[in-house]
Amino acid sequence: MQQMKVELAERSYRIVQGDDLLVHLGELLAPLQLAEHVVVITNDVVSPLYGSQVDHALKQAGYRVDSVILPDGEKHKNAHSLDIIYTHMLECGCDRKTTIIALGGGVVGDMAGFAAATYMRGIPFVQIPTTLLAQVDSSVGGKTAINHPLGKNMIGAFYQPLKVIIDTSTLDTLKKRHFCAGLAEVVKYGVIADEEFFAWIEDNLATLLRKEPTALGYAIMRCCSIKADIVAQDETEQSVRALLNFGHTFGHAVEQLCGYGEILHGEAVAIGMVIAARVSATMGLCTLDDVIRLEDILYKCGLPTVVPAQFSPRQYVAAMMRDKKVSSGKLRMVLNRGIGSSDIYEFDNPIQVFAEVLACAAE
Amino acid sequence: MQQMKVELAERSYRIVQGDDLLVHLGELLAPLQLAEHVVVITNDVVSPLYGSQVDHALKQAGYRVDSVILPDGEKHKNAHSLDIIYTHMLECGCDRKTTIIALGGGVVGDMAGFAAATYMRGIPFVQIPTTLLAQVDSSVGGKTAINHPLGKNMIGAFYQPLKVIIDTSTLDTLKKRHFCAGLAEVVKYGVIADEEFFAWIEDNLATLLRKEPTALGYAIMRCCSIKADIVAQDETEQSVRALLNFGHTFGHAVEQLCGYGEILHGEAVAIGMVIAARVSATMGLCTLDDVIRLEDILYKCGLPTVVPAQFSPRQYVAAMMRDKKVSSGKLRMVLNRGIGSSDIYEFDNPIQVFAEVLACAAE
Repeated sequence: MQQMKVELAERSYRIVQGDDLLVHLGELLAPLQLAEHVVVITNDVVSPLYGSQVDHALKQAGYRVDSVILPDGEKHKNAHSLDIIYTHMLECGCDRKTTIIALGGGVVGDMAGFAAATYMRGIPFVQIPTTLLAQVDSSVGGKTAINHPLGKNMIGAFYQPLKVIIDTSTLDTLKKRHFCAGLAEVVKYGVIADEEFFAWIEDNLATLLRKEPTALGYAIMRCCSIKADIVAQDETEQSVRALLNFGHTFGHAVEQLCGYGEILHGEAVAIGMVIAARVSATMGLCTLDDVIRLEDILYKCGLPTVVPAQFSPRQYVAAMMRDKKVSSGKLRMVLNRGIGSSDIYEFDNPIQVFAEVLACAAE
Repeated sequence: MQQMKVELAERSYRIVQGDDLLVHLGELLAPLQLAEHVVVITNDVVSPLYGSQVDHALKQAGYRVDSVILPDGEKHKNAHSLDIIYTHMLECGCDRKTTIIALGGGVVGDMAGFAAATYMRGIPFVQIPTTLLAQVDSSVGGKTAINHPLGKNMIGAFYQPLKVIIDTSTLDTLKKRHFCAGLAEVVKYGVIADEEFFAWIEDNLATLLRKEPTALGYAIMRCCSIKADIVAQDETEQSVRALLNFGHTFGHAVEQLCGYGEILHGEAVAIGMVIAARVSATMGLCTLDDVIRLEDILYKCGLPTVVPAQFSPRQYVAAMMRDKKVSSGKLRMVLNRGIGSSDIYEFDNPIQVFAEVLACAAE
């Protein structure tokens, strides 16, 4: 078992990673001194796989366990699902000391986290991410949210968990497509902050795709470490935290236009990273070789790299203008400088930039 | 103009109080260095009275102003109204730098504050309370919330405003019934923390009921000062902040059973304080004279002091058991020790206590 700490003063917490951690849940939670009552929030895909194991481990450790099982998928990350959580929790007598345990991928973690942030103005919260994407990215750093029909993650809160428990063996049951979507975020960390790690991914991709535990453990903890460093510097995204959004500005536009769930978040981020890198190249911030290197690794991960052609540059730009980084009407976007470094840039006339780049990148 | 500071480290902010402050809004906001775009959230009672004045003052100071006008009343403090706010804000291009200005009473402030806490994970927020209740209580301290069909203020966040601007002259247009409801919270501060202030209210009640500005200004700032002290000690209600809930545990039960809006929050708190004081007397924490002194001042404020008789003690206790102070299944309630002091008490068998007290207090 490996562990690290996310340093956020009185909101600091530990990330633990290992194989078969679910059976040791009692011991892992013990230092948190939680109240007796816990609510496991999960979905109808994860529940049949790990629900009873988690339930058993919690009950054996003396917890009183309730659970909420939501329908799976990004299209359910909305106010309606949130209300299902609130209502169930009120009906089963959850109080301010009740702990929410998120068991699932990014959608479950984001929604359960936002429920924890807002139920009775905030209750304790533990993340047990079961997808690669959630393990390397969304479960760490305290971003919680639901989608609004007019934009992804528009309603949310910064709310830190008390612990993140990453059981790598849950990835055994993760569908290939979802595993690959998680790799998009792994690649992202290399591009924005660590060329050496990017090269390591290139060298070890076959091993990662076989889900070899040691390689997976290394990659996950490297991603968490980069993220923890950035979050410790800028918890509420006033500055450097925005770098974690590399590929997400265009990616969110793709998700929104295609319809949530039609394309996976990681897949949209893969496309978004390619577009961001092309914009970088246009601006002379990276070489075309860097773009090709990125496209190549994403392709080998089984991820899409071409932009869905059914939407116009104007539609993409309009969707991007609803991004949370837009400030005083100006589009702001993270661009890579070569591989391993990145910064945030502002665009006065995005339609011009994107019309050109998208013309090259369309299917 | 008087002012004071709520001391909350990097979340500290000022409360300013005076007559005719609305016309000076530009100067009052200037030190906050807000972005250009502001959204005024108000209701259909306050908007015709002060909407154009606020709009004008903001535009003169160079702000771009949008507004959301909600239907008035506690029964609209729900997820539906919140979605109206979110949708309007997304449609008119509000970003992370947009400031929400709450112009109205406690319902508007609570909802606008929760929208500010959750729109794009948190945006700047200013309170302009226009009811006595909001000026002495709900606009200060950062409690924001909406109601859930299963309980009042169940969904919310602790989220501090950047400034609270109390224009006492807005009380000129406040209906008598609503003004009196605000007095309930004024009396509360005397009971829980300041016997001298309680005596001052007794001595100056006629002046207060005439809305004499000097007396009003003194009462409002005394209440804000007591609240600011308590909030500075315990922002997220882990301990002493619960004292501000005196009268609210039973009061919330009355509101919930009668239907939100049928009885005003302050009226329900008045009844709740009488019940709390009677429980205190039963337990020997105060004398019957203290109870009578409290009932007397509430009566003179034009407030109800008897419990609606159409509900049984069992119904009241069931409603109270959904209170946010309930912990591990035990009812917790603030009780007064004499007048001017209070503490929180836990009840193993609330039905027994309340059956007795309610039998004496029923209509």
